[in-house]
Amino acid sequence: MLTRIDHIGIACRDLDATVEFYRRTYGFTDVHTEVNEEQGVREAMLKINDAGDGGATYLQLLEPIRDDSPIAKFLAKNGEGVHHIAFGTDGDVQEEADGIAAKGVRVLYDRPRRGSMGSRITFLHPKDCGGVLTELVQAAAKPAEH
Amino acid sequence: MLTRIDHIGIACRDLDATVEFYRRTYGFTDVHTEVNEEQGVREAMLKINDAGDGGATYLQLLEPIRDDSPIAKFLAKNGEGVHHIAFGTDGDVQEEADGIAAKGVRVLYDRPRRGSMGSRITFLHPKDCGGVLTELVQAAAKPAEH
Repeated sequence: MLTRIDHIGIACRDLDATVEFYRRTYGFTDVHTEVNEEQGVREAMLKINDAGDGGATYLQLLEPIRDDSPIAKFLAKNGEGVHHIAFGTDGDVQEEADGIAAKGVRVLYDRPRRGSMGSRITFLHPKDCGGVLTELVQAAAKPAEH
Repeated sequence: MLTRIDHIGIACRDLDATVEFYRRTYGFTDVHTEVNEEQGVREAMLKINDAGDGGATYLQLLEPIRDDSPIAKFLAKNGEGVHHIAFGTDGDVQEEADGIAAKGVRVLYDRPRRGSMGSRITFLHPKDCGGVLTELVQAAAKPAEH
């Protein structure tokens, strides 16, 4: 079952400047950063609030680390802005995706890939989701230290 | 202080079909609907999870009710998809906006307008927010009944 909005993914050209914008403007400071080579991004997670399911809701800021990454292509086409939204699941993300696929929504990965902070993730096709690139997230069993 | 992600605003052409998509695909059923004449939209709020500040996080589905509404113009330019993100404040939304304006971010309304479920809202200029149209929300003192 999907039990929370896990994060909003935002594409940016300069991660450090964007983290600083969110800190200076709103005071958001709970930051985890990592490089995801497979996704071709350097990213920062800003925790905004706890969620009622025991998880949390984040902003995920994404800067491309190579020109052929999906985020680089998104920026070239659309400029900076919201790239995707992500729902958190309380169970196995592949089982969740299989259930959604059975309803006719295309799942973009054959098997889950590694997401932020040790999570397992997959994506749903935006054309099947009202124009919204939608990610499913299974958080790591133990949250990573910040 | 901004204490939660209040909602993600999603522009759609057919509100009823989009509500049905989210129900059928993910099981989201906690729905409040209303017409906001000033904003030129018919909207549905799908509550996804409680937030740690006592509020909640929603998807806000937005269908235009006239061709000159901002949502109609967004759809004509971009098609369906994420329109804005909204942060919830624990205090007065105008005071929050004034503090943000003092940091050089343009606030789009002179004074707060009526948002979903009796909330008071304002918007920040996307060009000052990394391409993200950003709303600030002060929830109604007592949540509206669904």
